[in-house]
Amino acid sequence: MRQTAFQDAYPDDLSHCYGCGKNNEHGHQLKSYWANDSQDAEVSDLSATTCAKFTPAQYHTALPGFVYGGLLASLIDCHGTASASAIATRQARRVMTSTPALRFVTAALKVNYLAPTPIGVELAITGSFIEVKPKKVVVKVTIFANDTQCAEGEVIAVLMPETMSGS
Amino acid sequence: MRQTAFQDAYPDDLSHCYGCGKNNEHGHQLKSYWANDSQDAEVSDLSATTCAKFTPAQYHTALPGFVYGGLLASLIDCHGTASASAIATRQARRVMTSTPALRFVTAALKVNYLAPTPIGVELAITGSFIEVKPKKVVVKVTIFANDTQCAEGEVIAVLMPETMSGS
Repeated sequence: MRQTAFQDAYPDDLSHCYGCGKNNEHGHQLKSYWANDSQDAEVSDLSATTCAKFTPAQYHTALPGFVYGGLLASLIDCHGTASASAIATRQARRVMTSTPALRFVTAALKVNYLAPTPIGVELAITGSFIEVKPKKVVVKVTIFANDTQCAEGEVIAVLMPETMSGS
Repeated sequence: MRQTAFQDAYPDDLSHCYGCGKNNEHGHQLKSYWANDSQDAEVSDLSATTCAKFTPAQYHTALPGFVYGGLLASLIDCHGTASASAIATRQARRVMTSTPALRFVTAALKVNYLAPTPIGVELAITGSFIEVKPKKVVVKVTIFANDTQCAEGEVIAVLMPETMSGS
Protein backbone atom coordinates (compact mmCIF):
# COMPACT_ATOMS: atom_id res chain seq x y z
CA MET A 1 0.00 0.00 0.00
CA ARG A 2 1.27 3.43 -0.89
CA GLN A 3 2.36 5.36 2.18
CA THR A 4 0.92 8.69 3.15
CA ALA A 5 3.64 11.34 3.05
CA PHE A 6 4.80 12.41 6.49
CA GLN A 7 3.85 15.99 5.72
CA ASP A 8 0.37 15.01 4.55
CA ALA A 9 -0.30 13.58 8.01
CA TYR A 10 0.45 16.87 9.76
CA PRO A 11 -2.66 18.57 11.17
CA ASP A 12 -4.10 21.21 8.86
CA ASP A 13 -2.97 24.08 11.06
CA LEU A 14 0.63 22.83 10.84
CA SER A 15 0.57 22.27 7.07
CA HIS A 16 1.40 25.73 5.75
CA CYS A 17 5.17 25.37 5.38
CA TYR A 18 6.44 26.84 2.11
CA GLY A 19 8.82 23.93 1.76
CA CYS A 20 6.49 21.05 2.48
CA GLY A 21 3.01 22.05 3.62
CA LYS A 22 0.12 20.55 1.68
CA ASN A 23 -1.86 23.73 2.37
CA ASN A 24 0.70 26.12 0.87
CA GLU A 25 -0.31 26.50 -2.75
CA HIS A 26 2.75 28.65 -3.51
CA GLY A 27 5.24 26.26 -1.98
CA HIS A 28 7.34 23.25 -2.88
CA GLN A 29 5.03 20.66 -1.26
CA LEU A 30 7.90 18.26 -0.62
CA LYS A 31 6.65 14.76 0.26
CA SER A 32 8.79 12.53 2.49
CA TYR A 33 8.30 8.82 3.09
CA TRP A 34 9.95 5.85 4.73
CA ALA A 35 12.26 4.05 2.34
CA ASN A 36 10.63 0.80 1.26
CA ASP A 37 12.72 -1.41 3.48
CA SER A 38 12.15 0.89 6.46
CA GLN A 39 8.38 1.17 6.26
CA ASP A 40 7.78 -1.67 8.67
CA ALA A 41 11.03 -1.46 10.64
CA GLU A 42 11.04 -2.09 14.37
CA VAL A 43 10.42 0.89 16.59
CA SER A 44 13.93 0.67 17.95
CA ASP A 45 15.61 0.34 14.55
CA LEU A 46 17.53 3.55 14.03
CA SER A 47 18.96 2.33 10.74
CA ALA A 48 15.59 3.11 9.14
CA THR A 49 15.89 5.60 6.31
CA THR A 50 13.58 8.07 4.59
CA CYS A 51 13.27 9.30 1.04
CA ALA A 52 11.77 12.02 -1.11
CA LYS A 53 11.94 13.11 -4.71
CA PHE A 54 11.80 16.63 -6.07
CA THR A 55 12.23 18.17 -9.49
CA PRO A 56 13.23 21.84 -9.27
CA ALA A 57 11.61 24.29 -11.65
CA GLN A 58 13.70 25.86 -14.39
CA TYR A 59 13.67 29.16 -12.52
CA HIS A 60 15.16 27.58 -9.37
CA THR A 61 18.50 28.33 -10.87
CA ALA A 62 21.81 29.58 -9.46
CA LEU A 63 23.75 29.91 -12.67
CA PRO A 64 22.13 28.76 -15.90
CA GLY A 65 21.85 24.97 -15.85
CA PHE A 66 22.30 24.53 -12.11
CA VAL A 67 19.99 24.49 -9.09
CA TYR A 68 20.43 27.32 -6.56
CA GLY A 69 21.76 26.32 -3.19
CA GLY A 70 18.97 27.85 -1.19
CA LEU A 71 16.49 25.40 -2.65
CA LEU A 72 18.73 22.47 -1.76
CA ALA A 73 19.00 23.84 1.78
CA SER A 74 15.20 24.08 1.92
CA LEU A 75 14.76 20.49 0.76
CA ILE A 76 17.28 19.25 3.31
CA ASP A 77 15.58 21.28 6.03
CA CYS A 78 12.05 20.07 5.32
CA HIS A 79 13.05 16.46 4.70
CA GLY A 80 15.02 16.55 7.93
CA THR A 81 12.24 17.88 10.12
CA ALA A 82 9.68 15.54 8.53
CA SER A 83 11.98 12.57 9.09
CA ALA A 84 12.45 13.68 12.69
CA SER A 85 8.71 13.83 13.17
CA ALA A 86 8.29 10.38 11.64
CA ILE A 87 10.86 8.60 13.77
CA ALA A 88 9.84 10.38 16.98
CA THR A 89 6.23 9.41 16.33
CA ARG A 90 7.25 5.82 15.62
CA GLN A 91 9.34 5.66 18.77
CA ALA A 92 6.36 6.94 20.74
CA ARG A 93 4.42 3.98 19.25
CA ARG A 94 1.96 6.36 17.69
CA VAL A 95 0.78 7.02 14.14
CA MET A 96 1.50 10.23 12.29
CA THR A 97 -2.12 11.35 12.30
CA SER A 98 -2.45 11.08 16.08
CA THR A 99 -2.61 14.30 18.08
CA PRO A 100 -0.95 16.29 19.38
CA ALA A 101 1.36 15.95 16.40
CA LEU A 102 5.05 15.61 17.17
CA ARG A 103 6.09 18.39 14.83
CA PHE A 104 9.77 19.33 14.72
CA VAL A 105 11.45 22.61 13.84
CA THR A 106 15.05 23.27 12.85
CA ALA A 107 17.56 24.45 15.42
CA ALA A 108 20.57 24.17 13.11
CA LEU A 109 21.24 23.28 9.51
CA LYS A 110 24.50 22.44 7.75
CA VAL A 111 24.86 21.89 4.04
CA ASN A 112 27.94 20.88 2.07
CA TYR A 113 27.61 21.48 -1.64
CA LEU A 114 29.60 18.67 -3.22
CA ALA A 115 28.91 19.07 -6.93
CA PRO A 116 26.90 21.45 -9.11
CA THR A 117 23.29 20.23 -9.19
CA PRO A 118 21.94 20.03 -12.74
CA ILE A 119 18.51 21.53 -13.33
CA GLY A 120 15.78 19.52 -15.04
CA VAL A 121 16.71 16.33 -13.19
CA GLU A 122 14.59 14.66 -10.50
CA LEU A 123 16.54 14.82 -7.26
CA ALA A 124 16.64 11.86 -4.86
CA ILE A 125 16.70 12.90 -1.22
CA THR A 126 17.44 10.45 1.58
CA GLY A 127 17.43 10.79 5.35
CA SER A 128 19.15 8.73 8.01
CA PHE A 129 19.33 9.21 11.75
CA ILE A 130 22.38 10.25 13.74
CA GLU A 131 20.60 10.83 17.05
CA VAL A 132 17.03 10.24 18.17
CA LYS A 133 15.64 11.58 21.44
CA PRO A 134 12.02 12.49 22.18
CA LYS A 135 12.68 16.22 21.86
CA LYS A 136 15.77 16.25 19.62
CA VAL A 137 16.54 14.36 16.43
CA VAL A 138 19.62 14.77 14.24
CA VAL A 139 19.10 13.76 10.63
CA LYS A 140 21.69 13.31 7.91
CA VAL A 141 20.29 14.15 4.48
CA THR A 142 21.81 13.48 1.06
CA ILE A 143 20.75 14.75 -2.35
CA PHE A 144 21.62 12.91 -5.53
CA ALA A 145 21.02 13.94 -9.14
CA ASN A 146 21.22 10.82 -11.26
CA ASP A 147 24.21 9.00 -9.77
CA THR A 148 26.01 12.09 -8.51
CA GLN A 149 25.81 13.19 -4.90
CA CYS A 150 25.33 16.94 -5.09
CA ALA A 151 24.80 17.85 -1.45
CA GLU A 152 24.90 16.46 2.05
CA GLY A 153 23.30 18.08 5.04
CA GLU A 154 22.65 17.72 8.71
CA VAL A 155 19.51 18.94 10.42
CA ILE A 156 19.28 19.34 14.18
CA ALA A 157 15.54 19.20 14.71
CA VAL A 158 13.82 19.96 17.99
CA LEU A 159 10.28 19.33 19.07
CA MET A 160 8.22 22.38 18.18
CA PRO A 161 7.87 24.69 21.18
CA GLU A 162 4.26 25.36 22.15
CA THR A 163 4.88 29.06 21.59
CA MET A 164 5.08 28.41 17.83
CA SER A 165 1.77 26.59 17.66
CA GLY A 166 -1.25 28.63 16.79
CA SER A 167 -3.54 26.14 18.45
CA MET B 1 25.46 58.49 -3.81
CA ARG B 2 23.34 55.41 -3.61
CA GLN B 3 25.39 52.27 -4.15
CA THR B 4 24.65 49.75 -6.85
CA ALA B 5 23.74 46.42 -5.29
CA PHE B 6 26.52 43.84 -5.58
CA GLN B 7 24.19 41.52 -7.45
CA ASP B 8 23.14 44.23 -9.89
CA ALA B 9 26.77 44.52 -10.98
CA TYR B 10 27.01 40.86 -11.94
CA PRO B 11 27.20 40.28 -15.70
CA ASP B 12 23.83 39.45 -17.25
CA ASP B 13 24.71 35.81 -17.84
CA LEU B 14 25.47 35.41 -14.12
CA SER B 15 22.32 37.19 -12.93
CA HIS B 16 19.76 34.40 -13.00
CA CYS B 17 20.02 33.20 -9.38
CA TYR B 18 16.61 32.56 -7.84
CA GLY B 19 17.82 34.08 -4.60
CA CYS B 20 19.42 37.26 -5.90
CA GLY B 21 19.61 37.51 -9.69
CA LYS B 22 18.19 40.67 -11.24
CA ASN B 23 17.21 38.63 -14.30
CA ASN B 24 15.13 36.03 -12.40
CA GLU B 25 11.62 37.39 -12.42
CA HIS B 26 10.37 34.56 -10.21
CA GLY B 27 13.07 34.96 -7.56
CA HIS B 28 13.78 36.89 -4.39
CA GLN B 29 16.07 39.48 -6.02
CA LEU B 30 18.00 40.07 -2.82
CA LYS B 31 20.14 43.22 -2.99
CA SER B 32 23.34 43.41 -0.93
CA TYR B 33 25.41 46.53 -0.25
CA TRP B 34 28.34 47.74 1.78
CA ALA B 35 27.25 49.07 5.13
CA ASN B 36 27.47 52.86 5.08
CA ASP B 37 30.67 53.05 7.09
CA SER B 38 32.29 50.35 4.95
CA GLN B 39 31.54 51.78 1.54
CA ASP B 40 34.83 53.59 1.29
CA ALA B 41 36.91 51.36 3.58
CA GLU B 42 40.51 50.61 2.76
CA VAL B 43 41.15 47.62 0.55
CA SER B 44 42.88 45.84 3.39
CA ASP B 45 40.17 46.57 5.97
CA LEU B 46 38.56 43.24 6.74
CA SER B 47 36.30 44.78 9.36
CA ALA B 48 34.14 46.11 6.54
CA THR B 49 30.56 44.86 6.74
CA THR B 50 27.71 44.39 4.30
CA CYS B 51 23.96 44.69 4.60
CA ALA B 52 20.69 43.79 2.94
CA LYS B 53 17.02 44.04 3.72
CA PHE B 54 14.28 41.62 2.76
CA THR B 55 10.60 41.32 3.57
CA PRO B 56 9.34 37.75 3.16
CA ALA B 57 5.98 37.21 1.53
CA GLN B 58 3.08 35.94 3.63
CA TYR B 59 3.37 32.56 1.93
CA HIS B 60 7.03 32.17 2.93
CA THR B 61 5.77 30.61 6.11
CA ALA B 62 6.87 27.68 8.25
CA LEU B 63 4.09 27.68 10.78
CA PRO B 64 1.49 30.44 10.62
CA GLY B 65 3.11 33.70 11.65
CA PHE B 66 6.71 32.61 11.16
CA VAL B 67 9.17 32.58 8.25
CA TYR B 68 10.28 29.17 6.97
CA GLY B 69 13.88 28.27 7.58
CA GLY B 70 14.67 27.50 3.97
CA LEU B 71 14.14 31.13 3.01
CA LEU B 72 16.45 32.31 5.77
CA ALA B 73 19.07 29.83 4.54
CA SER B 74 18.64 31.21 1.02
CA LEU B 75 19.08 34.80 2.17
CA ILE B 76 22.20 33.88 4.15
CA ASP B 77 23.57 31.98 1.16
CA CYS B 78 23.03 34.75 -1.38
CA HIS B 79 24.15 37.55 0.93
CA GLY B 80 27.23 35.52 1.76
CA THR B 81 28.29 34.84 -1.81
CA ALA B 82 27.57 38.44 -2.85
CA SER B 83 29.61 39.76 0.07
CA ALA B 84 32.41 37.39 -0.90
CA SER B 85 32.34 38.70 -4.43
CA ALA B 86 32.41 42.29 -3.21
CA ILE B 87 35.38 41.95 -0.90
CA ALA B 88 37.37 39.81 -3.32
CA THR B 89 36.79 42.37 -6.03
CA ARG B 90 37.79 45.19 -3.69
CA GLN B 91 40.94 43.36 -2.65
CA ALA B 92 41.80 42.86 -6.31
CA ARG B 93 41.51 46.67 -6.63
CA ARG B 94 38.80 46.29 -9.21
CA VAL B 95 35.22 47.46 -9.49
CA MET B 96 32.26 45.08 -9.42
CA THR B 97 31.35 45.69 -13.04
CA SER B 98 34.82 44.76 -14.32
CA THR B 99 35.24 41.46 -16.11
CA PRO B 100 35.74 38.64 -15.70
CA ALA B 101 33.47 38.95 -12.67
CA LEU B 102 34.76 37.42 -9.46
CA ARG B 103 31.57 35.43 -8.82
CA PHE B 104 31.51 33.11 -5.82
CA VAL B 105 29.52 29.94 -5.18
CA THR B 106 28.77 28.21 -1.91
CA ALA B 107 30.86 25.27 -0.79
CA ALA B 108 29.26 25.01 2.64
CA LEU B 109 26.50 26.71 4.59
CA LYS B 110 25.67 26.61 8.29
CA VAL B 111 22.61 28.19 9.83
CA ASN B 112 21.64 28.39 13.48
CA TYR B 113 18.01 29.32 14.03
CA LEU B 114 18.03 31.35 17.22
CA ALA B 115 14.47 32.58 17.51
CA PRO B 116 11.26 32.19 15.51
CA THR B 117 11.28 34.78 12.70
CA PRO B 118 8.03 36.74 12.55
CA ILE B 119 6.46 37.14 9.13
CA GLY B 120 5.44 40.57 7.85
CA VAL B 121 8.58 42.23 9.26
CA GLU B 122 11.47 43.60 7.19
CA LEU B 123 14.54 41.52 7.97
CA ALA B 124 17.96 43.15 8.40
CA ILE B 125 20.79 41.00 7.08
CA THR B 126 24.43 41.76 7.79
CA GLY B 127 27.65 40.19 6.61
CA SER B 128 31.13 40.27 8.11
CA PHE B 129 34.30 38.52 7.06
CA ILE B 130 36.00 35.67 8.87
CA GLU B 131 38.51 34.80 6.15
CA VAL B 132 39.34 36.45 2.83
CA LYS B 133 41.53 34.79 0.22
CA PRO B 134 41.39 35.33 -3.54
CA LYS B 135 39.58 32.05 -4.14
CA LYS B 136 37.92 31.45 -0.76
CA VAL B 137 35.96 33.80 1.47
CA VAL B 138 34.19 32.89 4.71
CA VAL B 139 31.34 35.20 5.61
CA LYS B 140 29.37 35.40 8.84
CA VAL B 141 25.78 36.47 8.26
CA THR B 142 23.19 37.54 10.81
CA ILE B 143 19.46 38.11 10.38
CA PHE B 144 17.49 40.37 12.69
CA ALA B 145 13.75 40.99 12.81
CA ASN B 146 13.20 44.26 14.66
CA ASP B 147 15.66 43.97 17.55
CA THR B 148 15.68 40.19 17.74
CA GLN B 149 18.44 38.13 16.18
CA CYS B 150 16.61 35.26 14.51
CA ALA B 151 19.41 33.47 12.70
CA GLU B 152 23.16 33.39 12.29
CA GLY B 153 24.95 31.70 9.47
CA GLU B 154 28.33 31.02 7.97
CA VAL B 155 28.97 30.77 4.26
CA ILE B 156 32.14 29.24 2.86
CA ALA B 157 32.23 30.77 -0.59
CA VAL B 158 34.66 29.74 -3.30
CA LEU B 159 35.48 31.42 -6.59
CA MET B 160 33.14 30.05 -9.23
CA PRO B 161 34.80 27.25 -11.18
CA GLU B 162 34.98 27.89 -14.91
CA THR B 163 32.95 24.70 -15.47
CA MET B 164 29.90 26.47 -14.03
CA SER B 165 30.15 29.45 -16.34
CA GLY B 166 28.09 29.35 -19.47
CA SER B 167 30.43 31.78 -21.19
